[in-house]
Amino acid sequence: MHLNAHGLSVLVLDSGEHAVPTIVSLLGDGASVTLRTDALCAALEDLVRRGRLRWASDQVDESTFDLVIRRVPSPVAATPPSGAGRVTLVGAGPGDPGLVTVAGREALETADVVVADRLAPWEAIAWAPPGVEVVDVSKIPFGRSTSQDEINRILVDHARRGRHVVRLKGGDSYVFGRGFEEIQACAAAGVPTRVIPGVTSSVAAPELAGVPVTHRGLVQGFTVVSGHVPPGHPDSTVDYAALARSGTTLVVLMGVRTLPAITEALLEAGLDGATPCALVADASLPSQRAVRTTLAKAADDAATAGIGAPAVAVIGHVAALER
Amino acid sequence: MHLNAHGLSVLVLDSGEHAVPTIVSLLGDGASVTLRTDALCAALEDLVRRGRLRWASDQVDESTFDLVIRRVPSPVAATPPSGAGRVTLVGAGPGDPGLVTVAGREALETADVVVADRLAPWEAIAWAPPGVEVVDVSKIPFGRSTSQDEINRILVDHARRGRHVVRLKGGDSYVFGRGFEEIQACAAAGVPTRVIPGVTSSVAAPELAGVPVTHRGLVQGFTVVSGHVPPGHPDSTVDYAALARSGTTLVVLMGVRTLPAITEALLEAGLDGATPCALVADASLPSQRAVRTTLAKAADDAATAGIGAPAVAVIGHVAALER
Repeated sequence: MHLNAHGLSVLVLDSGEHAVPTIVSLLGDGASVTLRTDALCAALEDLVRRGRLRWASDQVDESTFDLVIRRVPSPVAATPPSGAGRVTLVGAGPGDPGLVTVAGREALETADVVVADRLAPWEAIAWAPPGVEVVDVSKIPFGRSTSQDEINRILVDHARRGRHVVRLKGGDSYVFGRGFEEIQACAAAGVPTRVIPGVTSSVAAPELAGVPVTHRGLVQGFTVVSGHVPPGHPDSTVDYAALARSGTTLVVLMGVRTLPAITEALLEAGLDGATPCALVADASLPSQRAVRTTLAKAADDAATAGIGAPAVAVIGHVAALER
Repeated sequence: MHLNAHGLSVLVLDSGEHAVPTIVSLLGDGASVTLRTDALCAALEDLVRRGRLRWASDQVDESTFDLVIRRVPSPVAATPPSGAGRVTLVGAGPGDPGLVTVAGREALETADVVVADRLAPWEAIAWAPPGVEVVDVSKIPFGRSTSQDEINRILVDHARRGRHVVRLKGGDSYVFGRGFEEIQACAAAGVPTRVIPGVTSSVAAPELAGVPVTHRGLVQGFTVVSGHVPPGHPDSTVDYAALARSGTTLVVLMGVRTLPAITEALLEAGLDGATPCALVADASLPSQRAVRTTLAKAADDAATAGIGAPAVAVIGHVAALER
């Protein structure tokens, strides 16, 4: 069945991993989706936390919805896999399934198991054959998560059972994706691997908001940092004072919470408070939103505009370019 | 016709833009291809300069080849385009057509005109409909090129004739791709545009050589710079001394010629000569090759190994990681 659900109010009474691609696809069409269920899998909980999906844990009036989906069919069991197991690490872009690569799509088309992150494009799992097993290893900030050791173990275990395991990751697997740790774990277990590079949000999020990370005559480089720890934190390996002088565009991922500390460190290092800045949340998704501001005002403007994770901050003169 | 040309020696007696997808596809299969023609279009000249394609301007003995292609069929003329013209900027990845995005492929499938760079994945043009017009705007380093103004004019002119123009660019359009200039030119002319982000070679080239640009506990950021001008050049906006202290992995694009000057500047700024370094040429193509070395030896080792453009240099502890 194909249905364009744009503008429909939809009630879904089924949850669990197998329903996630359908729910994400409804959201992608532009439907307003309410999920009525007692418990949520991690990927759905993440959509609720990000405000993309409404969750009703109590009774709702079904007659008020345009569409009620009582049961998302479980896929028919596929034929058992044959041959040697293997893991394909697919960097699947910022969230729009159109930003998965052709090679990534082909990997999904032959998957026996898909192990997906909360930021992976779950709609793309619809390209996998019927009977594919979907494993949700979403890590929710300050919430539920699967440990990296557990993820590594899942990949190796399924591959050892002779399966083609597709590890579907948001963005590119080697940009803060811990993809190399997964490759190392598979290699240590003797499991063959392939890595398919993906569209990284560090470049794509600014781009989709109309901001190039480089521009001839203006800037010849860009620096991408993780803001998961603030400047000066014992775990931080980044010298923000040096970056302030580097002459490159600065792109901060995972920096919503630490943005005040990061902008402060850059200002202290002498970067002009008037330096243009763009903030982009939910890049490539229907919920994408962007704010243009300055370094001095970025933290306040992010809070005012309700910019929440996943978000990307771009600091530099490119953030003032207009088409 | 589908033919796996792996290991075949092939003589092609036809040149011009319409033959390029066929020739690149033969090279992708692993064929050894000789082109016998008096003149070369820029994209083919580029392949010859990069050593991927042999060019014979004099007579050759046809009987010594496994396969002789006398004429690559010109595509049948398509029906004239209807509707409003538009330009879609497709960042098409480092060269392997599998690294084009699904959205990029869909754009090609509805193209009336494809305007392609020398580093674009020309094989992907085979996805366009019969009769598609292909315009070669390859810029060859120190060789033939189409000026940016001329490229902008080509895009606008074709769109004004009501056509869907796909601008197929290597890597991502906003990473040293001058894509934003093309968007600005179209916007100024009132031509509607769409930008589809792509896989950037700055991340993918290291990744395909087994090097992650970030790694947990080791490095929390990476800096991408263009090496088209050396440190200290009046046109350079990058402070290499600051980058040496930044604590980020350094990725240099377009830096084959300037690698001695760049490594020298980093050493002078105090970066340890033993800092690991990886050099990757022709990433994702059958001709991909990589060298692991150190900052102090990088320039010499690049020359010894014959690392030529397009190449990416990665400087930082990630370059020593093994799976």
